[in-house]
Amino acid sequence: MRYELYYWPTIQGRGEFVRLALEEAGADYVDVARKGKNGVAAMTKLLEGKGVARPPFAPPFIKSGKLVVAQTANILFYLGPHLKLAPRDEAGRLWAHQLQLTLSDLVVEIHDTHHPVSGGLYFEEQRPAAQRRSKDFWRYRVPKFLGYFERVLQKNGGRYLIGRRLSYVDLSLFQIVEGLRYAFPKHMKRFEKKATGVIALHARVANRPRIKAYLASKRRIPFSQWGIYRYFKDLDG
Amino acid sequence: MRYELYYWPTIQGRGEFVRLALEEAGADYVDVARKGKNGVAAMTKLLEGKGVARPPFAPPFIKSGKLVVAQTANILFYLGPHLKLAPRDEAGRLWAHQLQLTLSDLVVEIHDTHHPVSGGLYFEEQRPAAQRRSKDFWRYRVPKFLGYFERVLQKNGGRYLIGRRLSYVDLSLFQIVEGLRYAFPKHMKRFEKKATGVIALHARVANRPRIKAYLASKRRIPFSQWGIYRYFKDLDG
Repeated sequence: MRYELYYWPTIQGRGEFVRLALEEAGADYVDVARKGKNGVAAMTKLLEGKGVARPPFAPPFIKSGKLVVAQTANILFYLGPHLKLAPRDEAGRLWAHQLQLTLSDLVVEIHDTHHPVSGGLYFEEQRPAAQRRSKDFWRYRVPKFLGYFERVLQKNGGRYLIGRRLSYVDLSLFQIVEGLRYAFPKHMKRFEKKATGVIALHARVANRPRIKAYLASKRRIPFSQWGIYRYFKDLDG
Repeated sequence: MRYELYYWPTIQGRGEFVRLALEEAGADYVDVARKGKNGVAAMTKLLEGKGVARPPFAPPFIKSGKLVVAQTANILFYLGPHLKLAPRDEAGRLWAHQLQLTLSDLVVEIHDTHHPVSGGLYFEEQRPAAQRRSKDFWRYRVPKFLGYFERVLQKNGGRYLIGRRLSYVDLSLFQIVEGLRYAFPKHMKRFEKKATGVIALHARVANRPRIKAYLASKRRIPFSQWGIYRYFKDLDG
């Protein structure tokens, strides 16, 4: 089965959670919007509902045969068992998905540190609100979210979040750590002592052969000032 | 099967999406935190991970036998087929869930109109940012989200969002319309002409016998200034 991934071609963004799962599994996939000159047009067509009974609201989405699945966590829920990156039993799948949805909530909060007023305005147009939001984010939200994942990890023995093997949720948590290090290097450096299990998990994921190869490849788009994670000196305390 | 719902006892909040599904289905459920003096303590215990292998991050969550499921959309994904409020085939379930996750995204944006900087600060401490965010929300975000649901509805014949019968997604969209009317009466009045199908769906849901009885009962907590939807004259244009 060749999967088609549709996502903005120049950012990691939410698509990266899906890319990491496909890469770790060694899956056969094509990153449509990055291939050939008509990739973005093909994506736009599906978003406009042309030739698709159930149009996605936004990227990322995947095509698997005739099935179109959108919403990052939903995509991973679907792919998980196929890629052997999720438990197969119903309770295990729901638990993995529940954790993934909690990471999705965190992703919104990360994005909104630099764009608390509107995604349609420049950072410079919302700087004071962004500074206040970032301060609150590091004081209350990061400890709450990452503290929760630290507890879940420890409760499960410390090696993986779920069961006895790697899941797509571990990969997504890796990506969150990567992003926070890029966007908030000072804040993150101070915080990491408080979530040593999560940080160790990040290191283990980074060292998995396929992930390591992927991160070193051109398929991994670099962080930039256009994604979820953006570095602004003003926001990094 | 008696379901146990755990959610904050004094607000509709995210729990309401689950309540509406349980009520429409005539399911046997107990709203734990609202029953008896120990309800909230029972909820807190589970949130602290006591006596539960897989602790939720936050309410709402349900207990169904030994299974604990959190995250609103995940709860509805699980309950949907049991309550006969979702398709039973995999593609249909994923599609319903995808739409529900898109509504979840909208819910975050609705909440953040009045709390763009921090949920831990009073509205009065973030009024200018809230005014700007609300303006942006009505100019760009509501048309984008509700315009999408209007198209999905029309593409499916105009009566239901999915297939030939009511799903939990229709109930959730009803609740979004209810909430927007409470929080932004003027804005919403102007907007409703642009999503006549969604508004008609809202009216049909409101008239379903079980929903009608529920809305008139004490089980339906009134809107207030403590939930997702809050009315502030300053934000209603």
